[in-house]
Amino acid sequence: MTLAQLGGNVAVGTTTAADLEVTRVEAIPFAIPYAKPLRFASGEVHTAEHVLVRVHTADGLVGIAEAPARPFTYGETQASIRAVIDGLFAPQLIGTSALAREAIHARLHRTVGNPAAKAGIDMALWDVLGKAFGVSVTDLLGGYGAGMRVSHMLGFDEPAAMVAEAARMQEQYGITTFKVKVGRNPFHLDVAVCRALREAFGDAVELYVDGNRGWSPADAERAMSHMADLDLLFAEELCPADDVLGRRRHVRTCPVPVIADESATTPGEVTRELLGGSADAISIKVARTGFTGSQRILHQAEGLGVEVLMGNQIDGQIGTACSVAFGAAHATTSRRAGELSNFLDMSDDLLAEPLTISGGTLHVSGAPGIGVVLDPDKLAYYRTDT
Amino acid sequence: MTLAQLGGNVAVGTTTAADLEVTRVEAIPFAIPYAKPLRFASGEVHTAEHVLVRVHTADGLVGIAEAPARPFTYGETQASIRAVIDGLFAPQLIGTSALAREAIHARLHRTVGNPAAKAGIDMALWDVLGKAFGVSVTDLLGGYGAGMRVSHMLGFDEPAAMVAEAARMQEQYGITTFKVKVGRNPFHLDVAVCRALREAFGDAVELYVDGNRGWSPADAERAMSHMADLDLLFAEELCPADDVLGRRRHVRTCPVPVIADESATTPGEVTRELLGGSADAISIKVARTGFTGSQRILHQAEGLGVEVLMGNQIDGQIGTACSVAFGAAHATTSRRAGELSNFLDMSDDLLAEPLTISGGTLHVSGAPGIGVVLDPDKLAYYRTDT
Repeated sequence: MTLAQLGGNVAVGTTTAADLEVTRVEAIPFAIPYAKPLRFASGEVHTAEHVLVRVHTADGLVGIAEAPARPFTYGETQASIRAVIDGLFAPQLIGTSALAREAIHARLHRTVGNPAAKAGIDMALWDVLGKAFGVSVTDLLGGYGAGMRVSHMLGFDEPAAMVAEAARMQEQYGITTFKVKVGRNPFHLDVAVCRALREAFGDAVELYVDGNRGWSPADAERAMSHMADLDLLFAEELCPADDVLGRRRHVRTCPVPVIADESATTPGEVTRELLGGSADAISIKVARTGFTGSQRILHQAEGLGVEVLMGNQIDGQIGTACSVAFGAAHATTSRRAGELSNFLDMSDDLLAEPLTISGGTLHVSGAPGIGVVLDPDKLAYYRTDT
Repeated sequence: MTLAQLGGNVAVGTTTAADLEVTRVEAIPFAIPYAKPLRFASGEVHTAEHVLVRVHTADGLVGIAEAPARPFTYGETQASIRAVIDGLFAPQLIGTSALAREAIHARLHRTVGNPAAKAGIDMALWDVLGKAFGVSVTDLLGGYGAGMRVSHMLGFDEPAAMVAEAARMQEQYGITTFKVKVGRNPFHLDVAVCRALREAFGDAVELYVDGNRGWSPADAERAMSHMADLDLLFAEELCPADDVLGRRRHVRTCPVPVIADESATTPGEVTRELLGGSADAISIKVARTGFTGSQRILHQAEGLGVEVLMGNQIDGQIGTACSVAFGAAHATTSRRAGELSNFLDMSDDLLAEPLTISGGTLHVSGAPGIGVVLDPDKLAYYRTDT
């Protein structure tokens, strides 16, 4: 069916729910080494051990997405993601239309946890829908824009090395927003890094800090008072949310809004952390809430009047394409630079056409679905199940 | 493009954003008399004076929706809806892709108020998308189910007449959920109606009450204490939200959850009313928030952990088709019966195939878009601009 064949206000579409019946779900483990390992308060990453999720329909459509295992944040491993998809989720999907997303989610959510596995399936289903309709997921979700400004994450190092890394990202990719990993003890080295960045770049860059829960609440408060003159955008997860009262005091005294990331990954957690005074803003990561769940959290945050930021689950290129597809779809997610550059530190990826950041921006490809195409040779090389 | 022509995971869709360029927006006034006028605390309706919104694209697609004027609730009139669409909104839409919904909303929301006009445009755009993709709006929005249980609104009358009306709706349409209009002063007649209904039907029916702000907060509290034994589901807008402290006391003392309807029509109002203790649940009406805004409020309510109900803006059949299209799309909106039967009191409508309620359920047609087709002769007869 081409659109030119459609006419008037009479329904003439040929796609039906039956056409998009899911026939097969694959969870393919792969491993790609990092060229430059990423270091932060809650861990280090040397190899991307992710799972490629592929959803096949009776019509021969194939939707793809990426599920990164983050045992220190969500408890999932590459093996657990494969196991829950193969053993529980695939049988719940097969025979169902890819259009029946809310019914599918009701089934998947009978299983507790496993956010990356659920999110991978959700995004692969949206990829199917975009391909079936011939439109990008960005347009399906809202169609706000064509890309996002990129924020780059600066991992632990000495001040001079982190300034040099920021300068390189600015020169090579035009990136001017930096998320500085903090949370080392004592905190003075991290403060020195932030000060060195502000002194090196002046007002030409946006800076915010992410502690990955590395500090105590009192040290978070002290560190932020040392950085009150640095015009930071946000402070993210400097201390654990489970240090409940200490965290609330930190949020009350913090000179900039505090972003909840790993402490607010479900709508219920978002409500509790915001209303409990443990956060002022929310990080949205499609790698853990998919497109469907991320839109719920986005709408909730908008309704409550708090800012959101598109975060990065140390995504590969497929995951990054998912993040920008979602972020570009909405006005609110497009307001701030998105964390879309972690893939630059990986030695390779699975895509036929690598993503490119230029002028500080990552554009959505505009192709149907998530808009990326796998390279079969790379998949064969990096997959670890054969 | 048929789905059979699609293959593999390579993007081969032919639909592009350019294809769905909006070329024309119509706001057509029409008037259809009621066979049985509806009476409630904030007014009476004898004639449906609504506006048919039609959005045309360069490809010849036509999306439709219905905008009902409710001057006593939102300040809009049939003339104001036409004026704001013709004068402000149509020029902001023309030349834009129907896919760019978030960008379109950013433009429309520069104009304050005018909720029914904005909602009509939003739903007509979704109708275009469904027709372009060949799928129902229900599937586009979430694809949860195929229809909703129906709740029927019982307008003011004597107890025996309202029991008879409920019996007729049960017998003729299988409807077993009733929203009882209350808010008359003194309140004893309304209490007698609810008691008569419970005595006549026992546990075979669900009952809730809607006061359309007709009582004072103290009288609302007294009336509800007289009905505490009637196993009501909810109490809706018994007193004005602007009686702020009195309303909060009523909500605290009410034996059943209190629904905010006309007091919580935007995400910001929803947050204020719920967190301020002025409501426990939210009525969603696509006639005032469209599909896009209704999904925002739904997700916000889900995140905050409050119930929702699909309400009725005294919709005609097009508006009712829009309500059920949205309600059937999500698990949360499908949980309660939706208010989908007001059109039964109208003497006629604009559709080629009238909606039918049977077994207490209204099904979505499943046809692409909102799934309804206009009867050109009826439109020519009832439109009032020619």
